[in-house]
Amino acid sequence: MTTQSQQSKKVNVAVIGASGYTGGDLVRLAACHTNIELKELVAHSHAGQEMADVFPHLAYLRLPKLKAWNDVNWDTIDAVFCGLPHGTARDIIVQLPDHLKIIDMSADFRIRDPELYQKWYGRSHDAEGLLQEAVYGLTEFYSGEIETARLVACPGCYPTATLLALLPLLQNQVIDPSDIIIDAKSGVSGAGRGLKQNTLFTEAGEGLSPYSIGKHRHAPEIEQELSKAVHESVTVNFTPHLVPMSRGELITAYVKLHPDCSWGDLKRVLEKKYMTSTFVKVLPEEKVPATQHVRGSNYCHINVFPDRIAGRAIVISALDNLVKGSAGQALQNFNVMFGFDEALGLQQQALFP
Amino acid sequence: MTTQSQQSKKVNVAVIGASGYTGGDLVRLAACHTNIELKELVAHSHAGQEMADVFPHLAYLRLPKLKAWNDVNWDTIDAVFCGLPHGTARDIIVQLPDHLKIIDMSADFRIRDPELYQKWYGRSHDAEGLLQEAVYGLTEFYSGEIETARLVACPGCYPTATLLALLPLLQNQVIDPSDIIIDAKSGVSGAGRGLKQNTLFTEAGEGLSPYSIGKHRHAPEIEQELSKAVHESVTVNFTPHLVPMSRGELITAYVKLHPDCSWGDLKRVLEKKYMTSTFVKVLPEEKVPATQHVRGSNYCHINVFPDRIAGRAIVISALDNLVKGSAGQALQNFNVMFGFDEALGLQQQALFP
Amino acid sequence: MTTQSQQSKKVNVAVIGASGYTGGDLVRLAACHTNIELKELVAHSHAGQEMADVFPHLAYLRLPKLKAWNDVNWDTIDAVFCGLPHGTARDIIVQLPDHLKIIDMSADFRIRDPELYQKWYGRSHDAEGLLQEAVYGLTEFYSGEIETARLVACPGCYPTATLLALLPLLQNQVIDPSDIIIDAKSGVSGAGRGLKQNTLFTEAGEGLSPYSIGKHRHAPEIEQELSKAVHESVTVNFTPHLVPMSRGELITAYVKLHPDCSWGDLKRVLEKKYMTSTFVKVLPEEKVPATQHVRGSNYCHINVFPDRIAGRAIVISALDNLVKGSAGQALQNFNVMFGFDEALGLQQQALFP
Amino acid sequence: MTTQSQQSKKVNVAVIGASGYTGGDLVRLAACHTNIELKELVAHSHAGQEMADVFPHLAYLRLPKLKAWNDVNWDTIDAVFCGLPHGTARDIIVQLPDHLKIIDMSADFRIRDPELYQKWYGRSHDAEGLLQEAVYGLTEFYSGEIETARLVACPGCYPTATLLALLPLLQNQVIDPSDIIIDAKSGVSGAGRGLKQNTLFTEAGEGLSPYSIGKHRHAPEIEQELSKAVHESVTVNFTPHLVPMSRGELITAYVKLHPDCSWGDLKRVLEKKYMTSTFVKVLPEEKVPATQHVRGSNYCHINVFPDRIAGRAIVISALDNLVKGSAGQALQNFNVMFGFDEALGLQQQALFP
Repeated sequence: MTTQSQQSKKVNVAVIGASGYTGGDLVRLAACHTNIELKELVAHSHAGQEMADVFPHLAYLRLPKLKAWNDVNWDTIDAVFCGLPHGTARDIIVQLPDHLKIIDMSADFRIRDPELYQKWYGRSHDAEGLLQEAVYGLTEFYSGEIETARLVACPGCYPTATLLALLPLLQNQVIDPSDIIIDAKSGVSGAGRGLKQNTLFTEAGEGLSPYSIGKHRHAPEIEQELSKAVHESVTVNFTPHLVPMSRGELITAYVKLHPDCSWGDLKRVLEKKYMTSTFVKVLPEEKVPATQHVRGSNYCHINVFPDRIAGRAIVISALDNLVKGSAGQALQNFNVMFGFDEALGLQQQALFP
Repeated sequence: MTTQSQQSKKVNVAVIGASGYTGGDLVRLAACHTNIELKELVAHSHAGQEMADVFPHLAYLRLPKLKAWNDVNWDTIDAVFCGLPHGTARDIIVQLPDHLKIIDMSADFRIRDPELYQKWYGRSHDAEGLLQEAVYGLTEFYSGEIETARLVACPGCYPTATLLALLPLLQNQVIDPSDIIIDAKSGVSGAGRGLKQNTLFTEAGEGLSPYSIGKHRHAPEIEQELSKAVHESVTVNFTPHLVPMSRGELITAYVKLHPDCSWGDLKRVLEKKYMTSTFVKVLPEEKVPATQHVRGSNYCHINVFPDRIAGRAIVISALDNLVKGSAGQALQNFNVMFGFDEALGLQQQALFP
Repeated sequence: MTTQSQQSKKVNVAVIGASGYTGGDLVRLAACHTNIELKELVAHSHAGQEMADVFPHLAYLRLPKLKAWNDVNWDTIDAVFCGLPHGTARDIIVQLPDHLKIIDMSADFRIRDPELYQKWYGRSHDAEGLLQEAVYGLTEFYSGEIETARLVACPGCYPTATLLALLPLLQNQVIDPSDIIIDAKSGVSGAGRGLKQNTLFTEAGEGLSPYSIGKHRHAPEIEQELSKAVHESVTVNFTPHLVPMSRGELITAYVKLHPDCSWGDLKRVLEKKYMTSTFVKVLPEEKVPATQHVRGSNYCHINVFPDRIAGRAIVISALDNLVKGSAGQALQNFNVMFGFDEALGLQQQALFP
Repeated sequence: MTTQSQQSKKVNVAVIGASGYTGGDLVRLAACHTNIELKELVAHSHAGQEMADVFPHLAYLRLPKLKAWNDVNWDTIDAVFCGLPHGTARDIIVQLPDHLKIIDMSADFRIRDPELYQKWYGRSHDAEGLLQEAVYGLTEFYSGEIETARLVACPGCYPTATLLALLPLLQNQVIDPSDIIIDAKSGVSGAGRGLKQNTLFTEAGEGLSPYSIGKHRHAPEIEQELSKAVHESVTVNFTPHLVPMSRGELITAYVKLHPDCSWGDLKRVLEKKYMTSTFVKVLPEEKVPATQHVRGSNYCHINVFPDRIAGRAIVISALDNLVKGSAGQALQNFNVMFGFDEALGLQQQALFP
């Protein structure tokens, strides 16, 4: 329940990893948030620079200079957004003072099982206390726990698009958990701002390429949450593709219906779940989700279509990987944690064309 | 002077041409404006449809249905934004009731000389009264007249980028008006949403092409305003190029310095002019304007560089053609006309990447 | 069997529909063919113009002027490539003299069942004699019949990519025909050169959108050929997506293994089938097909990957929709029909980056 | 003069720097050359790998493995193409045996004055003998010297586009050498395959940015050649822009006419110069050069347009920076050096769309 006094309070915020794409987009969105005071921006390798030097598009926000993380006076900070790469995120978060609420956009606190984390991320977790405490920040499903959480682990971009579409279907037992195929497509910003040959304009442009087939780290994350929904171990096909666009993510899920169900039942389950949702929208019949319609916004568009193969259906989900798939959902979780309206700072419509 | 009572008033607004790109972007921006009530959306060939049908990215704004323009009850409307093609814009604007304030984004009321209009737009103007009354809506230069205007003719996208960069230089007599070369580059949305072969993805993608060399309609518009600044007839080179991106416009102007001036003088003139400007920003030394840093925002980035040829300089200006080059500037003019802060509804930072 | 005298003969060729993308690409490729004489270029709405007017990139090939189809003297022509839209293709092909060999790149003679054609293409076929005579031009499977055919119906771009990957698997009974899911992705040139809003740069750029879900005309074509392979009726899931690139097509097929088979068996079946193939290449283990590696070439890259779900596999196939998916395969068929080496005129490697 | 016996000889070729874009494109083109035997491919950091590993699109050319340069047996080699970065190119070329003909695509032997080289490239040249011997490989101007050269320094991509357009105009004294403004635009491949933040898809996509304003290394190269043409020191404005496309380069040159000349005179000068040129084409009146029409080909399209400012004209030139701007021109020079038809291996038309 949000009260008037909560509405007017200012929360002092630090962003760690402010020079990456998720950090930058968090700053862009937070600047529209009436109750956030951006006190500290942390970017280790850019310490001492202005945000305008690393992100010229944010030059006019009167932001603090970039700092090394150990130069921050945490006493004045209430909440931290962390946009660091996995591994580094964990290493820093374990050292943060207890009074801070933490919204982590990295992968470090998403996988609940430390052994599974070690298998997929190649290092031991060694912060199991924090891991147990962390709440998985899929806002539309865990807002109750997020409200009181100290550490929220925001879902990966692909898991967000996938789980928003499939979790209600598994919870309502309208699809078969043993036959879920997720063909996923992402824009290049999903790979981050680090330098890699395959994300050069010349390599990714005018081309389409699948990658990490059967080996993408978002697969175990998706499986963890789907398994939880059906109380049994779920294994999915998850096949991502790199698309020549900067922002946007779309998953096309091929699912098997439960014997008594039709594709229309799937649509009704989703419509019921998201009837009052601010950001997750089940489209009218035959309308097709497309990434250009959610670009820059916190919306997720979902729809269901009949399959030509009897007993199957197609579920499509589209979002902006940097917003609803990362910084937007992080801000939505922040709103829940601090008792604000969940849409505060997130009212921007998509930028099209 | 803006008063408190003005700040809280709601202005009832109609948008004509709501199914085009400038109309759509006006709606996107107006939706963030606290004092606009979007009462009517007019789109002749889509009358009866929902805005969501023509622009799915705006589906969640609780907008009125699209109407034919003659189905609108103008009595309840205070202001009209017009995003129609030229010719059609004139034909409708002449029929609008007197009590309406009109912000026209078409080309029909930009050229002050009816004969020049006829020469470049291929039809007689025949609304000379309105033409004389119209104020050229380059906000940073004519806000005084815009405040009291009934009809504001918003500048073209290229003229906006060009004039913001060059007008102060001519007014301050630091460059030679007889030797101005404007190499202009635009994203494809500048061509509108109409169907043309050269704006298909397959034709415009992965390619760069100059067009309308020496014949673009924005040349006489630029010359009209530059001539006014120096009280003599100015002829410019204006050479536009089509760039494979959706949004963004950049002009690279090659100018000859007045004998006593250096390129640094040009920079100082611009810095002085825009010292307190909300949206026009002269960048720090050596920082290069780029369209990706203003995408989706109402900013215009300008900077000056020395030329290798002695006695010359390079002036670069970048903006988003649909925002500062059209709908954003229109909204800025609306704010001036109705006594609001000029930045109301326009605070969004650029979307990058 | 190709003889020396065949190798030196010149074949007089006409291209109908020379102003479309498939017609244009046919001309580009044919110009590298040592035994083709391009005698006539037909483009109804551009009759009288030079090819350079509609395709400036082909200006230096010393091509004949574009003609209306009824101005052609067919007596001097040996072979016709037809790049017209469906419907129009049929209407003209039925009127062509008997001595001509015809390579049709339209959809009109692909579907063998006239009722199925009527259902999917919205008009009766009414040329059943020709239809029965036509050979389905999937070169790697029907070269024997193509050798002696008078009319070859070149497969659609999606069916080519799909069938090259899946036909051997069904013929060798290593996958289950009742559970085939084809997630297909195409560049924008697949939609042709006609003017449509959704293929404008501004609409298709920086975005990804599924389309024709469950309703694409290539689905029944794929099913026809797969059904033939297993002697039973096959229904597939076929879900195409529009990708912001001009050329390229990739299908990600999700298949169920026959109980005794592993994903490695699928790979071995494909390797055996294409061991000596000039254009269809099964990639080394773990190498991922990508459209940028076949752009502009007649190659099709295929590979097989294990699925995380036991008993399933992923088959990926990539080609250039205008070359191996249309004009290139047409030229390959021409080579087979006239006794040339199938690679003549098709030796160009892909253009990357 | 080319004789029949020359036509049938095979030249043994090594490519140094085969893993970069210019090296890769050289291999693509050389594979279509009937008289080249690609004996050695050198790529230091990829020694031991297959070319297919670094350039999958060239997998089917039966190429030798990549080697370190000092593992090459130069005795069997006749000619070397060098696609290394500047500095490294010089260091290796000085060590190559005397019997080799060398076509260098780097910048190391373009600037004739060692001091100027040191100023712009930041290191002393220290190979002045070779530097004096090197011939500037602008084929259309220096074919006589190229025929007998041992070392050909291929021009930079921007200088090629610029000089082909402007050299004839200066040589024929129809334009003023003191007032030349070159607004240049390039696709991203011009920056090479090295990892840089500004060439990531996310940074360069959907945006346009000028760069190296007044400081680009191609400016002194252009000036050197223009100065030579008029026997006096020429300084030009040269302002490059990065365009969101992989291939293609276009320069828009703004020039002042000599008092007695019209823009038509410029066109006539160019038409006369290139009347019999295989690759440099002066377009028909009003036809506009565009990079998509030369993509992947060795053509350069040029045209002249009247300026709105009296006494001035606009000269536009477009080419593919990796072909006519680098590897294609290198192969053309090879043909001249070895007595082949200059078009051998370069007959591919542009790939469009």
